[in-house]
Amino acid sequence: MDETSEDVETATAPSTGATRRGRGEGRGAAARRAARTGGGAGSAMPFIRRKIGVYEVLDEEALALVERNADIVLEEIGIEFRDDEEALRLWREAGADVRGERVHFPKGLCRELLKTAPSIFTQYARNPARNVQIGGDATVFAPVYGPPFVRDLEGVRRYATIEDFRNFVKLAYMAPSMHHSGGTVCEPVDIPVNKRHLDMVYSHIRYSDKPFMGSVTAPDRAQDSVDMCKLVFGDEFVDQNCVLVNLINANSPMVFDETMLAAAKVYARNNQACVVSPFILSGAMSPVTVIGTLTQILAEVLAGASFTQLVRPGAPVLFGTFAASISMQSGAPTFGTPEPSLVSYGAAQLARRLGLPFRTGGSLCGSKVPDAQAAHESANTLNTTLLAGTNFVLHAAGWLEGGLVSSYEKFMIDADQLGMMQRMAEGVDVSEAGQAMDAIREVGPGSHYLGCAHTQANFQTAFYRSSIADNNSYEQWLAEGEKRAEQRANARCRSWLDNYEAPAIDPGLDDGLKDFMAKRKESMPDAFS
Amino acid sequence: MDETSEDVETATAPSTGATRRGRGEGRGAAARRAARTGGGAGSAMPFIRRKIGVYEVLDEEALALVERNADIVLEEIGIEFRDDEEALRLWREAGADVRGERVHFPKGLCRELLKTAPSIFTQYARNPARNVQIGGDATVFAPVYGPPFVRDLEGVRRYATIEDFRNFVKLAYMAPSMHHSGGTVCEPVDIPVNKRHLDMVYSHIRYSDKPFMGSVTAPDRAQDSVDMCKLVFGDEFVDQNCVLVNLINANSPMVFDETMLAAAKVYARNNQACVVSPFILSGAMSPVTVIGTLTQILAEVLAGASFTQLVRPGAPVLFGTFAASISMQSGAPTFGTPEPSLVSYGAAQLARRLGLPFRTGGSLCGSKVPDAQAAHESANTLNTTLLAGTNFVLHAAGWLEGGLVSSYEKFMIDADQLGMMQRMAEGVDVSEAGQAMDAIREVGPGSHYLGCAHTQANFQTAFYRSSIADNNSYEQWLAEGEKRAEQRANARCRSWLDNYEAPAIDPGLDDGLKDFMAKRKESMPDAFS
Repeated sequence: MDETSEDVETATAPSTGATRRGRGEGRGAAARRAARTGGGAGSAMPFIRRKIGVYEVLDEEALALVERNADIVLEEIGIEFRDDEEALRLWREAGADVRGERVHFPKGLCRELLKTAPSIFTQYARNPARNVQIGGDATVFAPVYGPPFVRDLEGVRRYATIEDFRNFVKLAYMAPSMHHSGGTVCEPVDIPVNKRHLDMVYSHIRYSDKPFMGSVTAPDRAQDSVDMCKLVFGDEFVDQNCVLVNLINANSPMVFDETMLAAAKVYARNNQACVVSPFILSGAMSPVTVIGTLTQILAEVLAGASFTQLVRPGAPVLFGTFAASISMQSGAPTFGTPEPSLVSYGAAQLARRLGLPFRTGGSLCGSKVPDAQAAHESANTLNTTLLAGTNFVLHAAGWLEGGLVSSYEKFMIDADQLGMMQRMAEGVDVSEAGQAMDAIREVGPGSHYLGCAHTQANFQTAFYRSSIADNNSYEQWLAEGEKRAEQRANARCRSWLDNYEAPAIDPGLDDGLKDFMAKRKESMPDAFS
Repeated sequence: MDETSEDVETATAPSTGATRRGRGEGRGAAARRAARTGGGAGSAMPFIRRKIGVYEVLDEEALALVERNADIVLEEIGIEFRDDEEALRLWREAGADVRGERVHFPKGLCRELLKTAPSIFTQYARNPARNVQIGGDATVFAPVYGPPFVRDLEGVRRYATIEDFRNFVKLAYMAPSMHHSGGTVCEPVDIPVNKRHLDMVYSHIRYSDKPFMGSVTAPDRAQDSVDMCKLVFGDEFVDQNCVLVNLINANSPMVFDETMLAAAKVYARNNQACVVSPFILSGAMSPVTVIGTLTQILAEVLAGASFTQLVRPGAPVLFGTFAASISMQSGAPTFGTPEPSLVSYGAAQLARRLGLPFRTGGSLCGSKVPDAQAAHESANTLNTTLLAGTNFVLHAAGWLEGGLVSSYEKFMIDADQLGMMQRMAEGVDVSEAGQAMDAIREVGPGSHYLGCAHTQANFQTAFYRSSIADNNSYEQWLAEGEKRAEQRANARCRSWLDNYEAPAIDPGLDDGLKDFMAKRKESMPDAFS
C-alpha cells in the first residue's frame, strides 16, 4: 500500500443487505466505458484515483508564512467554542488556555493532537462496490447539500419536498461519476424539522447503495443517523469503521457553535468522519485577501479538527473549506471567481502538509438558472477542485442560486461534467497503444485516421462522450427544435427518473429501518422550526 | 532581463500616428482596477505576466518518449511540402532527404535549425502601450479567428459582413483583457475574396490600436499586409521587428500545402511571426490517443517551424496547437472535453522544451447558442489554456458553433472570463497587506469583516467584479426581468458599440493607407471564390 491510496476493499460490511453487483465489479472495462460515454444511468463508476498531479499556487515560503500566522491566531486571538462546557473542559484538560469561551492554543498543541487522525480512510457503503477512499489520490463526488428550494422539471422554483429529496438520491444513484449519495440533497420542508432526518437517512439507504452523510442539526438526530447505520452495518462494524461523513461548519470567523460541536462530538465518539469546514465568504467571514483567508481557515480547521481527536483519538476528520467571496458592492455572495480558486488551491496544499483529507469546491454558482453564468462559474470551480487534488467534493452537482436551490436540470449538466473530470484524472496513456505509432505509420501524410486499424480498435473508448452536449450540424440542431443544454438535460432527467430501479435491499433490514423510524417519530411531537 | 520576460518597451515604432495614451500608461493602478472590475470599455490592460506556475501532465519519461517518436516520424515517415519547389529546394540544401514532395529529416536537423528562433519577442502595436510580449511568462488574448457566419444582436445567424468585422475589432479594442486585435475576426463575405484582406488590415489599424494579424490566404495578400504595416511603422522598423503574427496551419496529418507555405515564406522573409499550428481533430487528423496526437503535433511543428528558419534565420515563430476531438459516432468536432485539454497541457510542455512561444486553446465550444454547453466547453478550454502557460491565445472570445460563427453575445461573456483569467494569473499577494493579520486581530471571533479598516482600504480592488454575472437576490432578479447571461451580454454589447470611440490616427497615415488600398483594389478584378 503506497502512501496515497489504500485498498478500499480490504474490509466488507457484514450485513449490507442484498446487493445487485458483486464486490469489485464496476472497476473494469464496463466502468471505463461508462466513464467515457457519459454513461448509461446506473453504470457503476468507482471513485476517482487521480493519475494526474496537483496544481499549487503557494511556494514553501508562503505556506510557512500562513502556518506561522495561523499559529499566532490560535495562540493570541483564540477560537471560541460556544455554549458547550464539555468542549471547554476537554480543551482545559488538553492544556489549552481557556478564558471564558475563548480557547487559546499553545503552539503545536493542535498539530500534536491531529497526529492520531488518519490521512486516508475508507467510507463503507451497503454495497461494497460503492465503498470510497477518502484521502490520498482519491477524489469522491457528492451532490449538492442544503438547499431549501428546488427548481423543478416544469421550471418552477418552490420549496423542496421529500419527493424531491428521493428524486435527487435516485439521480445521484444513477449518475456514473457520482460516487456518493451526499446528505441534505435538498431540505424536505414538508416533513417536521425534528423528524425529517429519519426520512433523509432512510432515503439514502433505500433508494441508493452509495455511501452517504448524517444529520448535524441536533445531537439526537446525529445519533439517529448513527443508529440507523448500525442496523445496516452492525454495531461493532460502525464503531470500528467509517460509514458516515458529516459536515461540521465553523461559524466563521473563529467560532464553533453549540449545534455543530454537539454533532461533532456524536460523530467523533462513534468513530464517524467530520468534515470541519470554515464557511467563508471572503470580505464578510474572512479578510478580503487570499493569504488572510487561508490563515483564518487553517486556524479554524486546526482547532475544530483537533477537537475531534480530543473526543476520540483516531476518529476520521477532513480539512474542509467552503470558499466564495462577496460582492463588495451589494454584499451578495459570488462564485467561480479567481480569488476563491486561489484559496482552494492554497487550502489543499495546507491540508496535504497537515496530512488530512481535503474537501472544497464543487459546481458552485450564483446564477438563478442553468445558463452560461451558471456553467462558467461551476466550471471554474470544478476545474479548480479537481486540479487542487480535492478528496471529497460536496456540491458536485445540482447547486444553483448560491446554494438556495437544488436544480434538476443543473444536476444533469453537472453530472456530465463530473464524467469529464473523471476522464481527465486518468491522465495520459503512454503504453504502446497510447503511442499509436502504428496508426501514424499506417495513415501517413495527407490521409485520415477514421478507418485505420488503431482507430477501429480504440474508438469506442477513445474520447469522453458528453450526454448533454449537442455537436450535430446547425441544420440538424435546427430540425431537432433548437434545444438548449438545459432542455436536453430536462429530457434526460425525466428519462432517468422514469427508468429508475431501486437497488435490492434485504426485507428484514428494510423493516428494521422502518420500525426504528416509526418509534423515533412516535417519541416526539412534530416541530416545524 | 530574466529568461521568461523582456522589456517590451525597449523599442518604439517610429511612425505610429497619434496615440491616445502615453507610453507605458495603463500599467498601473487604473489598469489593475479595470482588471478587477471587469473594466469599463476601453480601459487599458497590459498583456498578462503570469505569476502563477504552469500545470503539467507529462513526466520527463513521457516527454522524452514523444520526442523520440516524433523524430522517428520526421525521419522515417516524413512530412509533405506540397506544390512548392522552392520549399523542397531549401530542404535539400539544408541536408534533408527529399523524395518527391516528401521530406525526410535527419535526426536533429529541425532542432538545429530552430536554434535561431527567438524564445521571446515583442509584437509592436501602433500604440506602444499596446505592445505585447510573445513567449516566456506572457499570455496574450486575441479574438476568434475565421468564422464565415455571425450570430448578431437580433439573434439572427447569417453571413458576416465588413460591418460585423469592424464591430468585432471595436469590441476587442474596448475589452480590457483583450490584448490583441486578432486577424479574421469574421469573414467579411460582402467584399471580394481577393480584396477583403485590405479592408480587414485597415480595420485593425483604424478602429483599434492593438497589435493584429495578417492575411495568409495568398502570398500577395500576405505581402499587402506587410506593406500596409510598413506605412504604419516604416520599412526598416518592420524588417527588424515583429508587427504581425500570422496563422500558418499544417494540413494535418503531416502536410503543409502550397497556400500556407507561400504565406509562411512571405512572413518569414519579412521577419514577421508565424504560428505554425497543426489543425487537429483527434480521430480524424491524428490518432485517437493523447500521446499519438502529441507525437504528430511535435513532428509537424518541428518541420514547419524550422522551415521558417530556412527562409530567414531568426524570424519569430510559435509552436501552435489547435486541439479538439471528433465524435466517433457522428464525426462532428467536439470541444472542451478532457482529451484536448491533456493534449494542450502536453504540447505546452513540448514547446517549452523546444524554447518556442506556445499557442493553443481559447474559448472553444460546439454549441449553437451561448448556453451552458457553450460556457462549460469554453471554460474547460480556457482554464486549461491559462494553466498550461499558453503565450498566444487565439479564439479567446466570440467563438461559437465549432468556429463557424462569431457571436456578439458570446464575445462579451468570454471577455468577462478573460478578465477572471488575468486576475487569476496575478497569483497570491503575500505582502503584509495580503496577510491581513491586522484585520483578523481587529475583527476577532464572531464578528464580521465588512467594516474593518483593512476591508475599507482594499475592497475596491479585492475581488474580480464580473460584468456579466447577476449575483443579486432571486427577488431582485425577478423584478429586473429574469434575464439570462446572454441577455445581459447583449445589452452590454449594444452599449459598448454605441459608446465606441476610435483611437486617434495621424491623418496622413490614414490617407496613405486608403491610397494603398484603392490602388491595390484597382489593380485587379473582383473575385468571389
